[in-house]
Amino acid sequence: MKPFPVKDPIAHISWKGDRLLVLDQRLLPRRIKFMTCRTAEDVALAIRSMVLRGAPLIGVAAAYGMGLAARRGRPALERAGRRLRRARPTAVNLMHAVDAMLAAAEGVCERRLAPALAEAAVAFHREDIAGNQRMAVLGASLLKKGSRLMTHCNAGALATAGLGTAVGVIRYAHHLGKVSHVYPCETRPYLQGSRLTLWELMQSRVPATLITDSMAAHVMKTCAIDAVVVGADRIAANADVCNKIGTYGLAILARHHGIPFYVVAPTTTVDLATPDGSRIPIEERDAAEVLKIFGRPIAPRGARARHFAFDVSPHELVTAIVTERGIVSPANGRNLKRVVG
Amino acid sequence: MKPFPVKDPIAHISWKGDRLLVLDQRLLPRRIKFMTCRTAEDVALAIRSMVLRGAPLIGVAAAYGMGLAARRGRPALERAGRRLRRARPTAVNLMHAVDAMLAAAEGVCERRLAPALAEAAVAFHREDIAGNQRMAVLGASLLKKGSRLMTHCNAGALATAGLGTAVGVIRYAHHLGKVSHVYPCETRPYLQGSRLTLWELMQSRVPATLITDSMAAHVMKTCAIDAVVVGADRIAANADVCNKIGTYGLAILARHHGIPFYVVAPTTTVDLATPDGSRIPIEERDAAEVLKIFGRPIAPRGARARHFAFDVSPHELVTAIVTERGIVSPANGRNLKRVVG
Repeated sequence: MKPFPVKDPIAHISWKGDRLLVLDQRLLPRRIKFMTCRTAEDVALAIRSMVLRGAPLIGVAAAYGMGLAARRGRPALERAGRRLRRARPTAVNLMHAVDAMLAAAEGVCERRLAPALAEAAVAFHREDIAGNQRMAVLGASLLKKGSRLMTHCNAGALATAGLGTAVGVIRYAHHLGKVSHVYPCETRPYLQGSRLTLWELMQSRVPATLITDSMAAHVMKTCAIDAVVVGADRIAANADVCNKIGTYGLAILARHHGIPFYVVAPTTTVDLATPDGSRIPIEERDAAEVLKIFGRPIAPRGARARHFAFDVSPHELVTAIVTERGIVSPANGRNLKRVVG
Repeated sequence: MKPFPVKDPIAHISWKGDRLLVLDQRLLPRRIKFMTCRTAEDVALAIRSMVLRGAPLIGVAAAYGMGLAARRGRPALERAGRRLRRARPTAVNLMHAVDAMLAAAEGVCERRLAPALAEAAVAFHREDIAGNQRMAVLGASLLKKGSRLMTHCNAGALATAGLGTAVGVIRYAHHLGKVSHVYPCETRPYLQGSRLTLWELMQSRVPATLITDSMAAHVMKTCAIDAVVVGADRIAANADVCNKIGTYGLAILARHHGIPFYVVAPTTTVDLATPDGSRIPIEERDAAEVLKIFGRPIAPRGARARHFAFDVSPHELVTAIVTERGIVSPANGRNLKRVVG
């Protein structure tokens, strides 16, 4: 098989047989530092503390976390499953990964448990890489030559174990000569857009200009944006899309300006057990992450804040969902089931 | 006359006859430090470097700047007028203030120039204070009991010489028992929402919770927002509203959720010479203000950014404009001319 023409900017998750190396994304783009996970607890902590983030990557890391737990026997594996599921509530890939690893453990004798789970995790990882490439090809087919794109958060290589979802599409489309410019929104409060997506785009030499989240509407109106391309953390059975806070606003703004709004996500992000977006649990994180930037307060002493980490874009606002199994368009429950089911 | 029941949180602009004291808003809410302006150049620098900001306050400061220049004679006054006009291009109050001071200087003998201009500046300042109070009363009449409000940037006391425009309405409505909660958007890149508006609201004991700009759509959907109330930097003849970057997005989001969108601004903000919003010059500031927070980089080395400081909300998205002379509703050119003209 011919190697895929677009490369990852960095090997940010590496399985070493008895440990997992993960890039500490909190320090990007200024510092490249890896964290070594030797236990499932280490992996759960890395997920919870956002050393790594992005729904597909969380899934792959959790699979390896189960692989590490399997080295300590079956009860350890089951404990690890419960612990990993609790690490972040919104990303359903995490639940899928744990389920897949528990299924791989079924009927396996104790002696074979560790190697079987390690193999299953490696296979899960490979599937993510291959799925990313298929999404990149399918997604790029939706874009016209010379496209000016907007994206949000980081649905890039750093959010997956491969090329990325939304940013994978953008990078591959750029490789095909279809992208003239990209505007990543900075994505407060965690700044994944400025710290991660812009970094990935610059590494791949994709022309990109950072904007604040508050500039999105003005840029849609004045900079002739052709499409908004984002990832997803969970997609409900009716094709409602849960993604990083700010995505729902962009979906409304895109509709207002007549701009297509594309969601790129592997089928592991789809949760057919959740009938619609209103049933997706929205993680609410520590208000301190809004009240401080780099540990420095931006608000008066004693101030209150909310920190919703995700929001839900109803499927009516989504032009198409690009999965590794095909394009769901228009985005609705029937079409989603046809592609995923 | 009975004193107005809502007080300013701080005397942030004070005329001392031969100098102007202005609060350095860049240091809020952590430090209270005043800058002394002894010349019109000092005032222009304070405006340009955002020691003070907010269209109405810029106007009042410019009036005092002209008052300072008048002490050096008529040619100095005319030079100061040109310099002050250039300090910030979008706020039309600045242009109105300079025009008003030049008109006050007409036909005045050289000996009387300085006292006449000082008096005119003080009168301009008093008008702003009185106008704020009238807007607060009119604006509060639009709000229902128990309102949950959203605001953007700082259209507060700190943006004017008095009570504030949008925040003046909010504080007075709270005094009347009409406000149950306020969500100020943090307003990147300058964080006027978290640093200034939240501070003012807390000083006045108005229940308030900070959100990032990216949370606005989700909060509109899930927190039952009753109205969005913002200020303006310039209003065109057709009632298109130019205000802090991010306002246009909020106007679209409010419309999508069926939430009234109110603009509160003195008639000095109206520019009948500008036919519509597309003719308003949008200040573009230094990209470094987006790429760094508190001087610390948030993006990779060599990254590009745009820093649009304002955007334009077409009048179709504006439910009403509240001025000191009356409410313009629905917001359109005919109704605006009837109130302002």
